[in-house]
Amino acid sequence: MKTSRRKLLQQSLSLPALAAAPELILPKSPAGYTQKEREGRVKEGKPLTKSDLITPCLLLDLDAFEANVNKMAAHCKASNISLRPHGKSHKCVEIAKRQIKAGAVGLSVATIREAQAMAAAGITGMLITSELIGRPKIERLMQVVRKAPDTMTVVDNLTHAQELNDAAAAAKLKLHVLIDVDPGGKRTGIASGAPTIAFAEKLMKMPHLKLRGFHCYSGSSAHVAGFEARRQHSLNAMTPALETFAQLKQRGLPLEILSGGSTGTYNIDPAFKGMTELQCGSYVFMDVEYQLIGGQRDDKFYDDFASSLTVMATVISRNHPDRATTDAGIKSFATDRKFGPNLKDLTGARVFISSDEHGTVMLDHPSREVKLGDRLEFIIPHCDPNVNLYDRMYCVRGEKVVDVWRIVGRHGD
Amino acid sequence: MKTSRRKLLQQSLSLPALAAAPELILPKSPAGYTQKEREGRVKEGKPLTKSDLITPCLLLDLDAFEANVNKMAAHCKASNISLRPHGKSHKCVEIAKRQIKAGAVGLSVATIREAQAMAAAGITGMLITSELIGRPKIERLMQVVRKAPDTMTVVDNLTHAQELNDAAAAAKLKLHVLIDVDPGGKRTGIASGAPTIAFAEKLMKMPHLKLRGFHCYSGSSAHVAGFEARRQHSLNAMTPALETFAQLKQRGLPLEILSGGSTGTYNIDPAFKGMTELQCGSYVFMDVEYQLIGGQRDDKFYDDFASSLTVMATVISRNHPDRATTDAGIKSFATDRKFGPNLKDLTGARVFISSDEHGTVMLDHPSREVKLGDRLEFIIPHCDPNVNLYDRMYCVRGEKVVDVWRIVGRHGD
Repeated sequence: MKTSRRKLLQQSLSLPALAAAPELILPKSPAGYTQKEREGRVKEGKPLTKSDLITPCLLLDLDAFEANVNKMAAHCKASNISLRPHGKSHKCVEIAKRQIKAGAVGLSVATIREAQAMAAAGITGMLITSELIGRPKIERLMQVVRKAPDTMTVVDNLTHAQELNDAAAAAKLKLHVLIDVDPGGKRTGIASGAPTIAFAEKLMKMPHLKLRGFHCYSGSSAHVAGFEARRQHSLNAMTPALETFAQLKQRGLPLEILSGGSTGTYNIDPAFKGMTELQCGSYVFMDVEYQLIGGQRDDKFYDDFASSLTVMATVISRNHPDRATTDAGIKSFATDRKFGPNLKDLTGARVFISSDEHGTVMLDHPSREVKLGDRLEFIIPHCDPNVNLYDRMYCVRGEKVVDVWRIVGRHGD
Repeated sequence: MKTSRRKLLQQSLSLPALAAAPELILPKSPAGYTQKEREGRVKEGKPLTKSDLITPCLLLDLDAFEANVNKMAAHCKASNISLRPHGKSHKCVEIAKRQIKAGAVGLSVATIREAQAMAAAGITGMLITSELIGRPKIERLMQVVRKAPDTMTVVDNLTHAQELNDAAAAAKLKLHVLIDVDPGGKRTGIASGAPTIAFAEKLMKMPHLKLRGFHCYSGSSAHVAGFEARRQHSLNAMTPALETFAQLKQRGLPLEILSGGSTGTYNIDPAFKGMTELQCGSYVFMDVEYQLIGGQRDDKFYDDFASSLTVMATVISRNHPDRATTDAGIKSFATDRKFGPNLKDLTGARVFISSDEHGTVMLDHPSREVKLGDRLEFIIPHCDPNVNLYDRMYCVRGEKVVDVWRIVGRHGD
């Protein structure tokens, strides 16, 4: 690793445009329980168990996680569609590697921080699904592309595309891009049809950009409740982009990629003629939000993938018979939805996450006794922002902590 | 530092109860722009400016921050009350040191992670304001107390107090404790009056605990809207604890500390007879939530302290005249309140934080033009959980980045 870092620095120093770019961020070993400590405990014959962990903490049920990885991989293979799963959900090198080992063609990422962290760990086949605007991000993008030349990013603006072209020219490399086509959400992207066609023609003339296809992610389709309603929503959102893609291919443009799709539409989008790859992310973990959308099997409960991620908390105060106070509050859970986390192994209780450091569990008619010091596990409300809060996840099989995986490229990094 | 770490390890190894406790977490130098890189840039004559930063990122306006620190210090001195400011808000060693230099008697912290990080940096005079339940936390508490023997923590349960006493005995030290008295929120704490008196008597008999006083934090008083309403709320919440404290002192118990108070009640609680110290936290930063509660000067707008903390974002898509998309979404802001962040230097626009990686600014009648690539600063909705998302804050004076401070002991650490 030392030699390649030196080479990178030398290369970045030889290009005036990159002179000030900081070096790639390399994954650090986790604080708290490191892999080394964990292995040491195993050698002593005292392997780490859940009860050794400081709460609140993030737990990954490896059996459920592995089943999810395998199920999505098998589904994509059977559906004859590529999977470039989204790392924005997990931000975890070990998960990315397992997804790729199971057949994924690479990794989608949302930010330059995620791309840097993954590139530093040797991940290739990346697609950065947000527009990287501004000199600081473009400089770091060039470093990532030098490390992983097949990295793609998205463009929806001509001036920005020109800046990327110029930066790639200065760095003496070719940048692979996808046109970001707006599925109708007006968040990012060019309108399909004539605007996209005109944009594509201009991109084809930029010598240091290589246009590989389209990116069209319909975030608002992901959680539409009810399978048939969701299917219709995704179809409406994607059809204009699919048609424009077909038109450009007919004109002879060498477009091979059309990336889109979410965990909610994983078994819907492959049927759309022209989709080449899915960028589903949340399926590895699942959450309360996804459970509620309903699936093909059960229109009320989405169980195509298992809930593998929980937050473990400790009951730290138990002075009132009707409630237990835990140490997991707003700082430990995603709070962007109206609903909160669900208890994993306890029914007859309601969860309130309304203070920064504490959670309340109202014990209406609990299915078991809850005592001071007990550990409780919560299925997270919304996995992506929940994972973003943490620096590591403890991988468990039953009570045993068998691995510690670092979460990298956090938004606040 | 090496010698004391070795001593710590030796000491922990000689105590069977602590044999498995991991070593103290030492603050790491920040990723991204390190202090070293920043200093290097200064030496090159190219000091870092805001425009060099990768967004989204956290900015601390040093002038506003320093004014806040000084104002609270002066207030407490004039009010003849101690300040043990709350590190749960800032999780930052450099801020703690500045608060102590300005006259604070130590630092309040909410978790064992915060306590460990601060102890490792040499901070003393700590009060851990949450009950540390369970063997893993108690083991780490003993390590913290060995490093910083004046560390105090709170107790509201006899069995827990006994466990702490036994752990302190095994570690051959004395643990300073405060009784956590419930202000009525039923979150943690013992009821004031007879239950607290009985509890105090039992604690006095535990040879390895040193009872120093009470902890009574009325979280629900902090944001009561309207100064007079807030004053009444705090008075009602605190009076029973103050009376019980006075009773126990009359009986001769050596109680010198009664800790409570928030940024919302900093100019209310010092008038309560018996309060010895304030644990205000948010005043260093402020946020939208506090602005809304009204103060003594203006019942609608709380401006006793300046908003010093902002999130800086970049406009990454600008394809519709009525809106701008930024790169700061749910993963970059606290989302636990109904309201979101406010724009700092732009009026006539509304902010929506409703997707994970993106924010929307609706440009109703903007006070200035907003272009692709522009940087926008947002006053954070709720400072404590917002800070918890980030690994560092960039300290700015005007456009210049003059320091990089690491955020340690995050809840997800």
